[in-house]
Amino acid sequence: MKYEDVVYARRAINFFDPEKDVSEEMLDKVISLAAQAPSGFNLQPWNLMILRDKAKKEKLQALAWNQPKVSEAPITLIVLADMDGWKSGHPTVEKNWKEMIASGSMTEDKRDWFLNATQSLYRWSDAANVAFAVKNASFFSMALMYAATNYGLETHPMDGFDHEGVKKAFNIPDNFWIPVLISLGYRKPGVELHDSKWRKTVEDIKITFPEG
Amino acid sequence: MKYEDVVYARRAINFFDPEKDVSEEMLDKVISLAAQAPSGFNLQPWNLMILRDKAKKEKLQALAWNQPKVSEAPITLIVLADMDGWKSGHPTVEKNWKEMIASGSMTEDKRDWFLNATQSLYRWSDAANVAFAVKNASFFSMALMYAATNYGLETHPMDGFDHEGVKKAFNIPDNFWIPVLISLGYRKPGVELHDSKWRKTVEDIKITFPEG
Repeated sequence: MKYEDVVYARRAINFFDPEKDVSEEMLDKVISLAAQAPSGFNLQPWNLMILRDKAKKEKLQALAWNQPKVSEAPITLIVLADMDGWKSGHPTVEKNWKEMIASGSMTEDKRDWFLNATQSLYRWSDAANVAFAVKNASFFSMALMYAATNYGLETHPMDGFDHEGVKKAFNIPDNFWIPVLISLGYRKPGVELHDSKWRKTVEDIKITFPEG
Repeated sequence: MKYEDVVYARRAINFFDPEKDVSEEMLDKVISLAAQAPSGFNLQPWNLMILRDKAKKEKLQALAWNQPKVSEAPITLIVLADMDGWKSGHPTVEKNWKEMIASGSMTEDKRDWFLNATQSLYRWSDAANVAFAVKNASFFSMALMYAATNYGLETHPMDGFDHEGVKKAFNIPDNFWIPVLISLGYRKPGVELHDSKWRKTVEDIKITFPEG
């Protein structure tokens, strides 16, 4: 699809076709394309729990304002933002380190510099640590929603869930924040969409503050 | 451009052409397309400070690890995530409320329900408040980078900056978090790109935890 068509075709869909499955191959295509999203220091602090099983989706739905789409969609994703994703010893950090050494963009003597850099940016406060993980996982999530649209799928990003309850129910370790749940599937036939919601204008978005 | 071509064409560019300006019309096209990004309750808690002035870009550069691209790019954006973007009285909240009433999707008697919902999701902890703002502003930022690519521009998202220093230097109020700086412009002629950095595989991204 054309890029602009993807942007306008992406809508938060409430009614998924429970009869139309999304193949694992299709899901993998979506994830692969989303995985090209950028991240700070290429740390890619994102993971996905893939819920297909009806009982698991119903368990999630009960913690997500009982929104029927959570279990009606063939797949609901729990997006995870890894707050440990900048730490020495984390597999992605170490893989990045090896790749940087191999490519010549980093030298062994800069190991402390590199680790201090990520520490100073992502661990100067609790808020900064959450922001690091959530920002990057949200780049990935946005890319994933557009990738799904590009392949003819529909999505619905959801905030309406009990963050701590979902962590507990699905044994999600404390290093993860859950920025969003995303239901994924095909649109239910015969259901008409409302018009797109209003958006802020360019002038609403641009902001200035008095000079100091 | 084709969606997949945009995804693979988007690269974090270090060398911008300082001689080639980005018109305000082009910038507005990019922002308009990015503004179609989704957000929880359509709250759109994102703003942009647009830095074109050389002195201002240099002031920012000094707070951003002195990365030359900050001032070499014709435009550097300070992305702002509005942590107050869910509160009663916020212009976007009130505009959403009016639109929901007008469309019939909400009734006046549900005002308390609506405000309690956003409060319960976005203010149960400091971290949740940061996550709300940063998540949505990052959906917008990702959409903005792809939109720029679609129109032939280049971008570079940056984490390497002094968050509190930038807030102070540019008089940014405390309700804003700065998830990322984005330089925007055209690629400097004659500069060759490195290969894209490695990405996690689909299997790296999928994650499961032992059942409780």
